[in-house]
Amino acid sequence: MSNIVIQKFGGTSLADTKRFKAVAKIIKETSETGKKVVAVVSAMAGETQRLIDLAKGVQEIPDPREYDALISSGEQVSVALLAMSLRSENLKSKSYTAFQLDLRTDDYHGKARISSIDTKNLLMDISSNITPVITGFQGINEEGDVTTLGRGGSDTSAVALAVALNAEECQIYTDVNGVYTTDPNVYENAKKIDKLTFEEMLELSSLGAKVLQIRSVEFASKYNMPIRVKSSFTNEEGTLINGDENMEDALISGVAHTNDEAKLTIRKVPDIPGIAAKIIEPISAQGIEVDIIIQNVSEDKTTDFTFTVKREKAFEAKKILTDLSEEFGGGEIELNEDISKVSLVGVGMKSHAGVAATMFKTLAENKINIEMISTSEIKISVIVKEDSAHKAVKSLHDAFNLEK
Amino acid sequence: MSNIVIQKFGGTSLADTKRFKAVAKIIKETSETGKKVVAVVSAMAGETQRLIDLAKGVQEIPDPREYDALISSGEQVSVALLAMSLRSENLKSKSYTAFQLDLRTDDYHGKARISSIDTKNLLMDISSNITPVITGFQGINEEGDVTTLGRGGSDTSAVALAVALNAEECQIYTDVNGVYTTDPNVYENAKKIDKLTFEEMLELSSLGAKVLQIRSVEFASKYNMPIRVKSSFTNEEGTLINGDENMEDALISGVAHTNDEAKLTIRKVPDIPGIAAKIIEPISAQGIEVDIIIQNVSEDKTTDFTFTVKREKAFEAKKILTDLSEEFGGGEIELNEDISKVSLVGVGMKSHAGVAATMFKTLAENKINIEMISTSEIKISVIVKEDSAHKAVKSLHDAFNLEK
Repeated sequence: MSNIVIQKFGGTSLADTKRFKAVAKIIKETSETGKKVVAVVSAMAGETQRLIDLAKGVQEIPDPREYDALISSGEQVSVALLAMSLRSENLKSKSYTAFQLDLRTDDYHGKARISSIDTKNLLMDISSNITPVITGFQGINEEGDVTTLGRGGSDTSAVALAVALNAEECQIYTDVNGVYTTDPNVYENAKKIDKLTFEEMLELSSLGAKVLQIRSVEFASKYNMPIRVKSSFTNEEGTLINGDENMEDALISGVAHTNDEAKLTIRKVPDIPGIAAKIIEPISAQGIEVDIIIQNVSEDKTTDFTFTVKREKAFEAKKILTDLSEEFGGGEIELNEDISKVSLVGVGMKSHAGVAATMFKTLAENKINIEMISTSEIKISVIVKEDSAHKAVKSLHDAFNLEK
Repeated sequence: MSNIVIQKFGGTSLADTKRFKAVAKIIKETSETGKKVVAVVSAMAGETQRLIDLAKGVQEIPDPREYDALISSGEQVSVALLAMSLRSENLKSKSYTAFQLDLRTDDYHGKARISSIDTKNLLMDISSNITPVITGFQGINEEGDVTTLGRGGSDTSAVALAVALNAEECQIYTDVNGVYTTDPNVYENAKKIDKLTFEEMLELSSLGAKVLQIRSVEFASKYNMPIRVKSSFTNEEGTLINGDENMEDALISGVAHTNDEAKLTIRKVPDIPGIAAKIIEPISAQGIEVDIIIQNVSEDKTTDFTFTVKREKAFEAKKILTDLSEEFGGGEIELNEDISKVSLVGVGMKSHAGVAATMFKTLAENKINIEMISTSEIKISVIVKEDSAHKAVKSLHDAFNLEK
């Protein structure tokens, strides 16, 4: 464990020159506590979208290599401006692009994965009290072409650098002051969570996705690198995400919900061994991710098979099912887009029985019908009608006393 | 001589996505004639200024390393957008930054000079019918830091690439269709010049500076690389600048004028050997460039010494002269900012007597008083009152039939 801290700043934290100065002050204050800060930055708010719009203006389906070369330029602007802002605060600083750090990725433009980082220059800077400022989101492949890591990829850059530099923790500065027990726009009693495990954060992805790229949490979990989500506007305590599980962990950490799934049912397929695979395989083969799957118990010799997919893929999936049903002599296909998934997450439920019972009872008392259920060790998800999702979130938030 | 042609496009030629498409069409049409095009581009119009303004917003005197990292990002946007535009025209294309070409310069941020270019990838592309698109204006130094070549530096990048690739010629596309016999805003009879020598272009720098960086002409002259200035809006013939001098060369190629000089006179300095050096040395030592120098013939034991400097340096120069005059026991210092320099340029005058005579007679007939005269093999410059400069330009343009 070193005294190195990664501080990553997103686009809203770098919206204009005033914000750059505010961020420089945060870094300066951290440095004055004796920590060695390495900064990672995104493009200024709106900049990546401006570049995407330009690309659309010249080529209908932009060439992946050129698209990455284009949209990675926003981060180059940010690193230089932040290094200047730090120098304005009398802090020595140097900006680095992926090229300058030899930050290597694989070849998948737009969703590249980091393979190695040359930390030589960074370690030299750190030992000379120079604050390095590094472009997030970008890397280079074997040919020296620029690659990008996908939307929110700067978070993953930050965690990768934290791991490579053996940092104390990786701080993700954003425009909210942490991860909440539920979406504050849905329930005003939502409360900031002080501490979460990696597992919880991953299961709460729909809550977390608004503050950090979920892939960065997987990465941090793999290397046990603590992540702290903080606001660059308030600089309050934030939410710490790490690998520690202990007795004090809350039973439930949060209630998440998503409205982006659709439910598909294929009726009366023959209840023979391997039927689930026969149905799911052609769906997956088309790159359609299947989330919750339920196979009803058999009546006569047939069964109903239900699963959810992302809503934008629902029609495509329905078409595949229709073909399958003909093949099997199955029944009709039902598609229902009027659903929400509500998830209760917490490592505490591992060691506490009765969470599911309380959840179902609460929903029943609130006359919310459960259409599907899926459980894991630390998560229980239910599918409900879309218009009852907010009511479900609020009643569960109350039932498990999350506002405390 | 290869069949490679460099085509360089400036910011006004790349002002928006529509202009990128127009530029892609020019490159495509050139390629269809069997030429191998290598494109060099500037930042989109307004982009570099936007970045400069951002820099000013965060650091009063921007750090040179970070400033170059920042303002070079505009070219990165342009190369990617042009490569996409070319692909939209079904032309294979790849963008390159200075980093990707290992385009090395010295260490002088903001005015770096190119030392070497790795053409391996470019030659491979060319032989595979891929059109390379290269960032102008930028390079990298020994440490891998980004450097920039100064305002208009993309022209020099283009010439350097033309030399490195042994190109047929270097075409500079801009928003005017060539170099003119004089400023069309001053005299409506100004005519586009079809052909100029490097020497003439250098002497006409004040006319040329509006269309290309004069340093690029010096570079081209050194390696005898033909430059063609063309408009990306009309794609007309343009002006060819090369090393050929022949019998058909026009007597006079153009009349230029500048209003950015001031005249300084130090009266009654002792007329002793070395007095000129004693006066000019301390001026030069302050980085003040001296243009025309005149030392009057001696009356009694003293002489008057007159020279011109850039107007913004005039007060500084005057201060130095005042100190000198005290030291030498000289007379008063006169500063006159109300001057223009009018220059007549043409390789033809080398072999034709009487150009100066015609020039002076024309000015006399138009009652324009000549305050100073300076001559070179292919240029005659006179200093006149600023308000008579336009009249001088027009009358000389007529006298030498430049509208023909």
